[in-house]
Amino acid sequence: MKSGGRAGFAEWRDCFATLDPGLELRYWDEALLAPEAIDYALLWDPDPGMLARMPRLQVIFGSGAGVDGITADPELPRHIPLVRASIPEATQRMGEFCCWAALSLLKDARRMALAQAARRWDYFEPEARAQQRTVGILGLGNMGLRSAEMLRAIGFPVIGWSRTPKVVPGVESYAGAAALDAFLAHSDILVCLLPATPETRHIIRAETLAKLPQGAGYIGLGRGMQQTLEDIVAALDSGHLSGVVLDVFEPEPLPADHPLWAHPKAIVTPHVASLPTRAERATFIAAAIAAHERGETLPNLYDHARGY
Amino acid sequence: MKSGGRAGFAEWRDCFATLDPGLELRYWDEALLAPEAIDYALLWDPDPGMLARMPRLQVIFGSGAGVDGITADPELPRHIPLVRASIPEATQRMGEFCCWAALSLLKDARRMALAQAARRWDYFEPEARAQQRTVGILGLGNMGLRSAEMLRAIGFPVIGWSRTPKVVPGVESYAGAAALDAFLAHSDILVCLLPATPETRHIIRAETLAKLPQGAGYIGLGRGMQQTLEDIVAALDSGHLSGVVLDVFEPEPLPADHPLWAHPKAIVTPHVASLPTRAERATFIAAAIAAHERGETLPNLYDHARGY
Ligand SMILES: NC(=O)c1ccc[n+]([C@@H]2O[C@H](COP(=O)([O-])OP(=O)(O)OC[C@H]3O[C@@H](n4cnc5c(N)ncnc54)[C@H](OP(=O)(O)O)[C@@H]3O)[C@@H](O)[C@H]2O)c1
Ligand SMILES: NC(=O)c1ccc[n+]([C@@H]2O[C@H](COP(=O)([O-])OP(=O)(O)OC[C@H]3O[C@@H](n4cnc5c(N)ncnc54)[C@H](OP(=O)(O)O)[C@@H]3O)[C@@H](O)[C@H]2O)c1
Repeated sequence: MKSGGRAGFAEWRDCFATLDPGLELRYWDEALLAPEAIDYALLWDPDPGMLARMPRLQVIFGSGAGVDGITADPELPRHIPLVRASIPEATQRMGEFCCWAALSLLKDARRMALAQAARRWDYFEPEARAQQRTVGILGLGNMGLRSAEMLRAIGFPVIGWSRTPKVVPGVESYAGAAALDAFLAHSDILVCLLPATPETRHIIRAETLAKLPQGAGYIGLGRGMQQTLEDIVAALDSGHLSGVVLDVFEPEPLPADHPLWAHPKAIVTPHVASLPTRAERATFIAAAIAAHERGETLPNLYDHARGY
Repeated sequence: MKSGGRAGFAEWRDCFATLDPGLELRYWDEALLAPEAIDYALLWDPDPGMLARMPRLQVIFGSGAGVDGITADPELPRHIPLVRASIPEATQRMGEFCCWAALSLLKDARRMALAQAARRWDYFEPEARAQQRTVGILGLGNMGLRSAEMLRAIGFPVIGWSRTPKVVPGVESYAGAAALDAFLAHSDILVCLLPATPETRHIIRAETLAKLPQGAGYIGLGRGMQQTLEDIVAALDSGHLSGVVLDVFEPEPLPADHPLWAHPKAIVTPHVASLPTRAERATFIAAAIAAHERGETLPNLYDHARGY
């Protein structure tokens, strides 16, 4: 296993010891010394080529919902099932972050933070209520659906965009590339919760941002490769975007000299939107291993054809 | 009328012109030139003694939910009904702010803002989910009830404290001074949404803060007079409080040299938690005037005996 580094390994071992005492855990560096002994791999970003050298490997578990760090391995053994994390606590955390980000844009939290830093009592007149700002969610999967539900509960109208059409109570569904422009035109606050695939690369760029209503907000929670940062900064500077909350970047960490850190309309967070604890992740993985060993199908499998 | 100053008067006039063309509006300074002509007063903080000089005055409207600026007038004509604003859009806005503040504490938004200011990629391990932090709301009135509902919808367990017992689905009710300690002991995040009364003065002080669980958060949305700021700072410094969001102070504005502005665990906002627009307020007031003129009872009356 390779997730959280050496520092996290002791905690992983404790978690699995309680859940499945039969499992023998090896930290990645040790696993590489005896790759023929490995049945299950749990990782975020394997050293390329190494999974291919594990002849007994039965299942690869991603430690997050996005497995782009794993599929980036050119020698990834594609016949071995790859399970993306699907953890109720993680979707809850994402929903919380999404609500926090949307409310931060609605209330102009960035302006309040800058005023606080300047010790300035910056009273300002009311902006819109949640009911007056439609949130458009790109990606109505595990993360997008729970976020939609929570945003709706606090008053935001919500619409969603996915590859295949959805029936979600109270959430208007837009599906496929042909529906993207209409979806964007109705998104006062755009949230990206798409997986990293060839189709989603740079989906957030000048051309798509221009389709949003004047003064829209953007919340980037998918992957950095989906965003053209210069276009986002330009849209903020022109006023077409009124504010953004960005949690993902390419590369990560965002370099210290990047202009976005100090942008008066941007909230920058360090890829923390949805961090389940190791205990929450271990529970999901131990249950999946148990199901697999009973001969049942694995949950939330990665589909190489779809790319997510 | 005296609310929003001269700058706001034109907007008030436009709002009422649509809602009740029969109403003739006078800005406060002009009203004082002919006090005998005034039927209704709308204000936040009248010049003391002036309302008493309006012989025809029928109703006093507070422009906010809290009318402590009006009841501070020692010559306030107490026989004239005083209506506190009760505006659905204002309770919605308060609920939004309350959710934003609670999520800001849950996600440690202050830490993220300080890291952004320092251009530092400050990745940190997950904290609790909403389900693991009980929010205790002091004051289950118009504001507290809507906030409770919205907080519950995003996953927080919610308990409430009021003078009289309440039956609110999913919200445990604690009532009266005798129940305060038990209520505090269960509040991982304490929210104050009480009115300013002699009983609530300095209710947030060392003694009450000490009753909260170790590492609790505090959100101050009622009035500044309810809080002993030095005790809040001391509790933050000792670590007993892990973070605060404060929107109200005594005096306001919070002086520029106050240590709280720069406190690494405090989010300071300039009394903006719930600002309905003038149109939203005018709608409520015009409807109340219409009801009054039909001989119906006025809504949300101030009770001099209770003090709110
Ligand atoms: N910032 C963070 O902390 C963090 C944490 C976790 C996850 N994430 C990101 O969130 C992503 C989503 O996670 P998830 O668990 O919700 O994934 P998921 O359940 O697989 O959902 C993905 C959604 O995206 C849609 N989609 C994919 N490609 C599309 C395309 N070309 N056009 C339109 N829609 C498309 C899918 O449509 P269909 O429903 O039609 O298949 C689905 O609704 C992850 O891949 C990761 O990048 C970020
Ligand atoms: N920061 C802002 O922007 C902002 C905006 C609006 C309002 N506010 C503040 O919020 C306050 C509440 O507004 P509201 O409209 O919700 O008022 P409300 O409807 O009158 O509710 C007041 C609540 O406080 C309770 N309460 C009063 N005195 C108490 C005591 N001594 N012990 C226990 N409970 C007590 C009441 O109990 P009962 O239900 O038993 O009567 C009631 O539940 C306002 O007075 C104002 O100070 C702040």
